[in-house]
Amino acid sequence: MDISQQERTYETSMADKSTPSSLARYLDGEFWETKDHIREEISQGEPFRTSRFVISYWWFYPTFLSYVDHHDLILWWLRFKDMLFYVSIYMLFGVLPSGPQLGVVCGLFGGAVTNLGSPGQKKKWYLPVTDSEFTGMFAMTERGHGSNVRGILTEACYEPSTQEFIIHTPCEDAQKMYIGNSMKGNYASVFAQLIINGDSQGPHCFIVPIRDRHGVMNPGVTAIDMKHKEGLHGVDNGILIFDNVRIPRTNLLSKFGCVSADGLYSSPVQNKNKRFNAMLAALTPTRLGLTVQAIAAMKVSLQGHARYDLGYRRQFGPKDQQEVKIIEHQTQYLRLMPHLAAALALTFTTRFAACTMDHALCKGEVLQNNSSLQALVAGLKAYSTWENLACLQECRECTGGMGFMMENRIPALKCDSDVFVTFEGDNVVMLQVVVKELMTQFTRQLGNSVVGGLIKTWTSSVSDRLRTSFLGFNVDTVGDLSFLLKAVSYRERVLQRSLATRLYNKVKKKREEFFDAWNSCLHHVTSLALAHIHRVTLEQFALAVQECPVEEDHTLLTKFCLLHGTSLVYQERAWYLEHHYLTPATSRQIRTQLLELCRLVKDEALKVVSDFNVPSCCIQAPIAGVANPRAEWAFYSAPEHPIRASKL
Amino acid sequence: MDISQQERTYETSMADKSTPSSLARYLDGEFWETKDHIREEISQGEPFRTSRFVISYWWFYPTFLSYVDHHDLILWWLRFKDMLFYVSIYMLFGVLPSGPQLGVVCGLFGGAVTNLGSPGQKKKWYLPVTDSEFTGMFAMTERGHGSNVRGILTEACYEPSTQEFIIHTPCEDAQKMYIGNSMKGNYASVFAQLIINGDSQGPHCFIVPIRDRHGVMNPGVTAIDMKHKEGLHGVDNGILIFDNVRIPRTNLLSKFGCVSADGLYSSPVQNKNKRFNAMLAALTPTRLGLTVQAIAAMKVSLQGHARYDLGYRRQFGPKDQQEVKIIEHQTQYLRLMPHLAAALALTFTTRFAACTMDHALCKGEVLQNNSSLQALVAGLKAYSTWENLACLQECRECTGGMGFMMENRIPALKCDSDVFVTFEGDNVVMLQVVVKELMTQFTRQLGNSVVGGLIKTWTSSVSDRLRTSFLGFNVDTVGDLSFLLKAVSYRERVLQRSLATRLYNKVKKKREEFFDAWNSCLHHVTSLALAHIHRVTLEQFALAVQECPVEEDHTLLTKFCLLHGTSLVYQERAWYLEHHYLTPATSRQIRTQLLELCRLVKDEALKVVSDFNVPSCCIQAPIAGVANPRAEWAFYSAPEHPIRASKL
Repeated sequence: MDISQQERTYETSMADKSTPSSLARYLDGEFWETKDHIREEISQGEPFRTSRFVISYWWFYPTFLSYVDHHDLILWWLRFKDMLFYVSIYMLFGVLPSGPQLGVVCGLFGGAVTNLGSPGQKKKWYLPVTDSEFTGMFAMTERGHGSNVRGILTEACYEPSTQEFIIHTPCEDAQKMYIGNSMKGNYASVFAQLIINGDSQGPHCFIVPIRDRHGVMNPGVTAIDMKHKEGLHGVDNGILIFDNVRIPRTNLLSKFGCVSADGLYSSPVQNKNKRFNAMLAALTPTRLGLTVQAIAAMKVSLQGHARYDLGYRRQFGPKDQQEVKIIEHQTQYLRLMPHLAAALALTFTTRFAACTMDHALCKGEVLQNNSSLQALVAGLKAYSTWENLACLQECRECTGGMGFMMENRIPALKCDSDVFVTFEGDNVVMLQVVVKELMTQFTRQLGNSVVGGLIKTWTSSVSDRLRTSFLGFNVDTVGDLSFLLKAVSYRERVLQRSLATRLYNKVKKKREEFFDAWNSCLHHVTSLALAHIHRVTLEQFALAVQECPVEEDHTLLTKFCLLHGTSLVYQERAWYLEHHYLTPATSRQIRTQLLELCRLVKDEALKVVSDFNVPSCCIQAPIAGVANPRAEWAFYSAPEHPIRASKL
Repeated sequence: MDISQQERTYETSMADKSTPSSLARYLDGEFWETKDHIREEISQGEPFRTSRFVISYWWFYPTFLSYVDHHDLILWWLRFKDMLFYVSIYMLFGVLPSGPQLGVVCGLFGGAVTNLGSPGQKKKWYLPVTDSEFTGMFAMTERGHGSNVRGILTEACYEPSTQEFIIHTPCEDAQKMYIGNSMKGNYASVFAQLIINGDSQGPHCFIVPIRDRHGVMNPGVTAIDMKHKEGLHGVDNGILIFDNVRIPRTNLLSKFGCVSADGLYSSPVQNKNKRFNAMLAALTPTRLGLTVQAIAAMKVSLQGHARYDLGYRRQFGPKDQQEVKIIEHQTQYLRLMPHLAAALALTFTTRFAACTMDHALCKGEVLQNNSSLQALVAGLKAYSTWENLACLQECRECTGGMGFMMENRIPALKCDSDVFVTFEGDNVVMLQVVVKELMTQFTRQLGNSVVGGLIKTWTSSVSDRLRTSFLGFNVDTVGDLSFLLKAVSYRERVLQRSLATRLYNKVKKKREEFFDAWNSCLHHVTSLALAHIHRVTLEQFALAVQECPVEEDHTLLTKFCLLHGTSLVYQERAWYLEHHYLTPATSRQIRTQLLELCRLVKDEALKVVSDFNVPSCCIQAPIAGVANPRAEWAFYSAPEHPIRASKL
């Protein structure tokens, strides 16, 4: 620690300016120039540049940072008018404490207006948000209804005489709960049962004024601060209670349903269920946003781990010799390398999902009609947020006491992203969304003849199409990628087919209530959903490997792709053994292969984390080589990967 | 929420006073009277009674509570002169934030003095601690040496002319790091290399004055505050640096080695390795303390989950019918019930370990000679602390947003107990301690003839003795306990034998360096250690079931014991399939059995958590039925289990 603080900071920022490697470019993908531009902006950005100390402070002591500070930062984000642009910022670099707040204000409130409102309503309610004229909130969840949104109890009764809706909370279970920005925001998009003449038309979304610009509450609205949470201190969560609050008829977001002055309801979607699902589709983009934030948290935490454990820490070793680097311990690389591989797989898969969404939106498709995209995003959200928590925990444990110190950011990342697994749709519910779509595809393919189809599709299920496209793709170094691809695809297909059979038997033959039949298969359901999303991530990773133009990068990515596939099959080897897909001998071979691949890639970990190309102002962890004046003692200068070092 | 705050509090404290059920008594074990006395004391205790509000506050906002407040609480604990008594308190009821601080002051500093000092030294250094005359700290870990204590770099050079040791930090890696109580404490037990005439006699423990009662630092000692951590805000962690600090010759704790005035070293243990291991044995009791704290955290978090999810929360359900309680969802009970079973298994196993330790201490045995006890405690520490983290995470996720709110305590319990998995011996290192002992037992049994022995012991290994003692024990309701006991024992035995063979081949035949051979088997090593501790927990649970006198309790415990065993075998079913111990059909049967047992016991969960008999002043979670004036909105009155209700 003999270099002064200034020099260190300078060094780090110099390193940032070096030309990204070919792999870094490839990981950025098609829009690398935009992303480089964002990196430049963020590194020069007011909050990061002039108040570096404050930002550092903010990473360390999220509890101590007032909502106001976060709010300033959000206003800074908001100056980028281009939605994609600022959303990319928080997504890319793991700015978690304020990320969800931004998500609430723009993604959720804005998303509701954009997806559920008429063009006039968009102009009225969405543009002012991006101009920071007022902020919004998204009031869907109730005390009694988190996951089962259809059962919400808040009422919106239409009164023809005044042409108003009366928004009301009829009971405790109907209180809107965990509502982000509820202690500051001006307008809420409130989901409530639309009631005309005593009949409910199902949940609809209404714009309800909460408080004016001076903070004066709208009469009849109560907001209760829920105060302290495990993390996400940049978001104020509260309870909203409505006591017969009157809003104009035009405050009903009218894309999927509107009420005429004299109280006649009309909707372009006649079926109530479909209408409801169409409204829920508004959540799809923010769910994808959560996935990208989870990946960003993984990337940041893996930086710290890789640089500290590969660069410095030594412990134990051969007798009378220097101790070995801690990453050389078999358990250490076995715990961490699969997460690095998963972070890569998720990077490519998320880009695939985002492209699919982009194409759909460009072609003018409405997301709500693309249920397979919704299912993909739901599955990705569940898998990535759980994978992130597991990764953060391993990073914490593998960096020992250093990982427990707030300065090194892993604790705050853990606390902030913990809630990702249950909000914007609880992960277990998300997995059920995936499987409902898989079952729909399955029965559609069978032309509604479930029994005949079960046999017919044995050899040509939905997933076979993708599977066979990889048959020619063969890598034979330490494992066989086509074998792994076929294995994960086989598992999905068998689970899908057997679930269909079980449900058919229970519902059609034994006449069980559908809910009970489904519930008694819930473990099967969640296994299928994860099998599906595992298969998709491995395929997307394999495609990215196939298309990688630089040989050196291709070789490196191949190893990580094999590791990801091996790790997926290893986790489920019991299932493969049960289904005679693996023999006891090949199952043991999978374990050996996993250990061998982890050992093989560990020395490449530094290169990969460098090539994530996260600006140092977003890393902020002393063990990852970014100095902090408040914790001099925690600083370890970033070790350079040989390949990268030669470029400096 | 129509009952006033006072009434609620009264209700809860009334519930506390009801006679414990027979199961609660059985779970308390032999010393139930002492434990009831502790419950009484703690419920009446100053910090809990008069400053209830402060305590509540403290649970919610650990970050905001100054060290001083924790310190006051610790002084309160300390008035119980009986070590066992106050240690029981923090162990029993999950008082985590100050628990480890107490552990540092009494368990670690006190433990070092008690285990490593002469009778005179105990009188001089230990009694004043219990009289609160001064406080101590335990300075073992260094920046460069956490797990590998033998490699510590701090020096203690003897100077015959002054009869002093000179304690010195020769380099950055030698700084004592993460030292608890370092910003307030008066004396440190410092581990350093004892150097006489330039030769090291290995690590020894020295009492070094850090600051006087007025806080004035001893010259040459620097203490740096490491400040903010993920949790355990009741402990101040810091860095200690010694610049040629002089201490009298008599400050070397002399049980295992002392230096005469003229610089001659003598020790009752000639072998350097054995001497070092004997010193490390001082850590055994505090490791057991960590296990009990982990179990307490599980019990507290399971209260909240069980009472909220079993009592109130409903979501989804059959068409046109009331939604079902959330615990009725298959995934929900599958995620939680195995943790409840594990909490019971750990309760009995920890009591077994504590009794073994008690007997050893009563017989005047020195712990350092009881390496099998050390291994048991090391294994229990690793298993229980990981199991606790998994349990807390599931409770957090399964209680949704409520579990994320600080009021409900799960976040603070998670943050506080996270570090348990890496401190007082990193869990991966603990597992290696277990296996070193298992390998020693193995080779001892073979009379050093490793090869012949490998075959000979196939049918009569160490664990067979215990295994066969259960052969007559058969429960045939939904599963077969003797089958499960045999399975976990078989797995341990095979892993032990195959590890011995692998190590033998690598070291003896291929002449590999022992470290490299061991490291290339590290995944095997950790699997064996966990298999061992799993087997012990199932056996101890089975014994407790067998001895349970009340039929009703016996029946209930049997179900949970079967669940614990089924869950252990299910986790490792891939291994059993690889070894043809399970067929694909029986493996699937294990899964069905797991689902069925979880479904079966879910309705008993409320009774079990009640019978943990944790005083409500230690629960403090509104979702578990303990009201809090700062979070009225989070209160759900505790649902009564039918059996318990009838007794009120």
